[in-house]
Amino acid sequence: MPKKYIDLDTLKYILYDIHNLEDLLTAERFQDHDIQSLDMFINSVKELSDRELYPYLQEMDAHPAYHKDESVIVHKQVQTMMQQGGEMGLISGTFNYENGGLQIPFLAHTAATYILDAANNHLPGYMGLTQGAAELIIEFASQELNDRYVPKMIAGTWGGTMCLTEPQAGSSLSDIVTKAIPSNDGYYNITGQKIFISGGDYQYAENIVHLVLARVEGAPKGTKGISLFVVPKKRINEDGTLSTNDVTTVADFQKMGQRGYCTTHLGFGDKNNDCKGWLVGEENKGLKYMFLMMNAARIGVGRGAAAIAMAAYRTSLQYANERPQGRKLTSSGKKNVDEKQTLIIEHPDVRRMLLLQKSIVEGSMSLVFLAAKYYDIIQSTTDEKEKEKYNLLLEMIIPMVKTYPSEAGAVAVNNGVQVLGGYGFCTDFILQQYYRDIRIFSLYEGTTGIQSQDLLGRKVPMENGKGLELLASEIMKTIAAASKHTSLQKYAAILGEKLQLSQKVVRHLLPFAQKGNFERYLADANLFMEFLSIVTIGWLWLEMALDSANQLQNQQKKYDDKFYESKIHTLKFYFAYEIPKTTSLAISLLNDEETTIKKTTEYIY
Amino acid sequence: MPKKYIDLDTLKYILYDIHNLEDLLTAERFQDHDIQSLDMFINSVKELSDRELYPYLQEMDAHPAYHKDESVIVHKQVQTMMQQGGEMGLISGTFNYENGGLQIPFLAHTAATYILDAANNHLPGYMGLTQGAAELIIEFASQELNDRYVPKMIAGTWGGTMCLTEPQAGSSLSDIVTKAIPSNDGYYNITGQKIFISGGDYQYAENIVHLVLARVEGAPKGTKGISLFVVPKKRINEDGTLSTNDVTTVADFQKMGQRGYCTTHLGFGDKNNDCKGWLVGEENKGLKYMFLMMNAARIGVGRGAAAIAMAAYRTSLQYANERPQGRKLTSSGKKNVDEKQTLIIEHPDVRRMLLLQKSIVEGSMSLVFLAAKYYDIIQSTTDEKEKEKYNLLLEMIIPMVKTYPSEAGAVAVNNGVQVLGGYGFCTDFILQQYYRDIRIFSLYEGTTGIQSQDLLGRKVPMENGKGLELLASEIMKTIAAASKHTSLQKYAAILGEKLQLSQKVVRHLLPFAQKGNFERYLADANLFMEFLSIVTIGWLWLEMALDSANQLQNQQKKYDDKFYESKIHTLKFYFAYEIPKTTSLAISLLNDEETTIKKTTEYIY
Repeated sequence: MPKKYIDLDTLKYILYDIHNLEDLLTAERFQDHDIQSLDMFINSVKELSDRELYPYLQEMDAHPAYHKDESVIVHKQVQTMMQQGGEMGLISGTFNYENGGLQIPFLAHTAATYILDAANNHLPGYMGLTQGAAELIIEFASQELNDRYVPKMIAGTWGGTMCLTEPQAGSSLSDIVTKAIPSNDGYYNITGQKIFISGGDYQYAENIVHLVLARVEGAPKGTKGISLFVVPKKRINEDGTLSTNDVTTVADFQKMGQRGYCTTHLGFGDKNNDCKGWLVGEENKGLKYMFLMMNAARIGVGRGAAAIAMAAYRTSLQYANERPQGRKLTSSGKKNVDEKQTLIIEHPDVRRMLLLQKSIVEGSMSLVFLAAKYYDIIQSTTDEKEKEKYNLLLEMIIPMVKTYPSEAGAVAVNNGVQVLGGYGFCTDFILQQYYRDIRIFSLYEGTTGIQSQDLLGRKVPMENGKGLELLASEIMKTIAAASKHTSLQKYAAILGEKLQLSQKVVRHLLPFAQKGNFERYLADANLFMEFLSIVTIGWLWLEMALDSANQLQNQQKKYDDKFYESKIHTLKFYFAYEIPKTTSLAISLLNDEETTIKKTTEYIY
Repeated sequence: MPKKYIDLDTLKYILYDIHNLEDLLTAERFQDHDIQSLDMFINSVKELSDRELYPYLQEMDAHPAYHKDESVIVHKQVQTMMQQGGEMGLISGTFNYENGGLQIPFLAHTAATYILDAANNHLPGYMGLTQGAAELIIEFASQELNDRYVPKMIAGTWGGTMCLTEPQAGSSLSDIVTKAIPSNDGYYNITGQKIFISGGDYQYAENIVHLVLARVEGAPKGTKGISLFVVPKKRINEDGTLSTNDVTTVADFQKMGQRGYCTTHLGFGDKNNDCKGWLVGEENKGLKYMFLMMNAARIGVGRGAAAIAMAAYRTSLQYANERPQGRKLTSSGKKNVDEKQTLIIEHPDVRRMLLLQKSIVEGSMSLVFLAAKYYDIIQSTTDEKEKEKYNLLLEMIIPMVKTYPSEAGAVAVNNGVQVLGGYGFCTDFILQQYYRDIRIFSLYEGTTGIQSQDLLGRKVPMENGKGLELLASEIMKTIAAASKHTSLQKYAAILGEKLQLSQKVVRHLLPFAQKGNFERYLADANLFMEFLSIVTIGWLWLEMALDSANQLQNQQKKYDDKFYESKIHTLKFYFAYEIPKTTSLAISLLNDEETTIKKTTEYIY
């Protein structure tokens, strides 16, 4: 099944040729790595995925994680993933050497975990959250907490989670009420409920280290009074043995998709009011710490969605190449029934559904990898100005990196289902599972609504619009280069117009914010998200087509002509079918009727 | 739960005030009915739905139909539905008196079954297919077959199905191979496999009457050689007892949604080559007969999808009205954490998701009811010219009636899921089930691709474009009337422009057909479907807003002002957010790069 769930050629093309992984390796941080060793790493992750992940995907859906006797029972591959992932450096690969890491570029690590996600999206989250929790401890907690928790976590022996959401608060973190009362012995007494905690409990973990947002008694209201605690499921005794820390697994949410990836409801101090937590960093800075890790988490979500859409695309493409049905119309408008049936990939409508998937899937991959590259530059550069520049660029694109693969990815998978016809709806075929699995991604780590408010509300205005300016100037560079290619001029010009249109939209909206009417300013943030995402993906396709056009003239190209021509063709498709959507989005964004803002009477009922 | 799954006020408003059910009753066919009796019928169906359908919807999903010992085991409510539906005239209500019917207008019957679908979409299909099969027998089969089968079917004691699809043929009916060999005793020997047969077998049916498309030995190739047969699961012996007819239930397809509505694989003559079928009408006319029933079937599919989207909308609206979360931004751009949390229905983005649902849901309802009204006029008029006119209008809109509620309805439900946030993804909440259930509708009874080819390939060119002309002139009437209302002028003008744009698109495409390049002509049929559907729904919203604007000036209006104002508000929303999409669709439709038509090299891989 070489191309069954992933197109490794395209992954490597985007990784090595489009986002130039090699360029990163000149930084001191990455000096021990070369392309050959990183390529071996990627290949070994693909082998692991073929062997230990992909074969269990449908099984994990059919037999979901479940709650039993105060524990959560998950599929046995969770143990395999944590163990082998730990051994291969998939948890700690990007960490510093002194923290047990390998200083692998985040870009390479993202490509590797993308492969895992494409193979089986129910498994990598267990590792990913453990990695995120360990990073928080490494970055902000004391050396003592580091020594106590991190080694077992990065070995995959202990799990880790992020505990933000509470029943009454949802996306509104300022309303968190989990309580922390300081003791005289350095710990805090924790009480409260957390819901939607991914990987919150499973029978294979010796221990689970929860990173919990809570409010120290007497702390200011709102987000300024939130602190971060390490709250292990089991306390570590002096002799290294483990004993209970009064963390209860109340329930495991049963879901429509990602059913092998448990989503728990945890109670802290429920039974004996005896749950201890240890403060990370300083009091009341918890949300700040958490959000410093949020960019990586959001890249991870975008990556997962992009990877599921990839798997769905590959599966539906294979079906379209194997399934005969119907015939082409002759010039009389009739079908010749004496002819053999044609493969469905010959039908323009099926081709449209495949190209739509391809353009979203590969565009999303490029966007996710771009964010990872920015992340690496920020981590590894010694040039402060460069660091600042890429920081702004990363902040600017992060909401789109999280959202576009989730929203457009779901549309792509929906088209994958449609390619299979009635079979797409049947559980014997995996498309319907991808359809269910990907649906969570526009809710994870800040819903599309939250991300859109972040994009338009925080990122566009930040530093007087400098982030958007920097993004526009990156796009302009590609437009300028593509304008020199006769075959790409047309698309470069269209993208330029769309960039101007985006500026027009921003100029129309900003005055509302300046006048203090933020509700109006942000009312159509979701449409702006879609608008700017389509433009950004258009840019990445132009970049890919430009490289492909150049490679076609190269005597020593890596891939055959068809490969590069398919990228150029997909650009054309994207500009014919997706880019035009910005025109109508702009019409809606420039509309001033304010039909979604509540005035006096309630009209929605 | 008065408004939990349906807004009955809006249903009655569209039924009585917008599509004027009463006007139909002047026809001789409907003379025994009045609005009062039909309203009682509607109310009793709502009571039945509250009592026997809605309470079992989640249970039927959790415990799907399954195959066991060559039979399919379904939920006990299937028996209740068939029995009580039979008693209430839900199977035969629209039939002629002489066929055991009540001559209820199809429009009233459609409104009634819409309520059933909104309450529990897994159940009405069993009745609907029995009704369709009985209608085929009544319309085209001999009196003998009528007497033998129809009475038990319309009583709900026997089920009925339509057997079209075969494993190798899918949407391509010309490739059907099920064989019929004539005997000397009036019957045919049937052998073959049929898949995706809804309601194909269940333990409560004494007998199931399959209407099977098959090929008489030696018949012409393609669709011209297809005949229609009555093939009962059990043969009726001379003494009225039943014995096997060698129809095997091979399997029950397990699906992502509509899991309580069984989808079977049937084998005819598998065991003993002893399966008898009786010809309906004449040989080789089977497809024609089947397609004469197809309009009603396609209205039924659109109705089901529209109803699921209604239920999802009502559920998410209720949640938005009960769930506090977050706060409005103050003029400083910050939130005041001392304030109580606001209900999420106050947030513009949530309002956008609700209004999008409302506009799609009620627009779809109006479209489905419009088709049913046309159907009634055709059935009941004595004026041949009127009959011809409404026939063309019905043919014109049918593909949209089937497709718009299915495609846009799925988008609506997706937004309903999003309103619930993480809970929308959890099986404790029903939104995720609606999300899965509705997904089949763009595949049923001709996929969206097939419907789009029907719309652009057959319906637009039929009688030299007369269908499209008639539709445009109906739309123009509403535009003319709305233009006289100051508050609606603007929207009337926009709709007029969109109508012209649709004509521009058609003028651009038709020459390809005229030159015999049908592949090019139809390549973007799906986009044209979306385009014309948005315009048509825009028309129906303008019609609804026009009536509401008039009613607001009426002293004796039925509903309060808020009701009518909400309709006008939804029109404004639709014109701000949905109508603009036609602009970008037109750009794509007018694009001549032909990126979805395969030339020489295969670029999709």
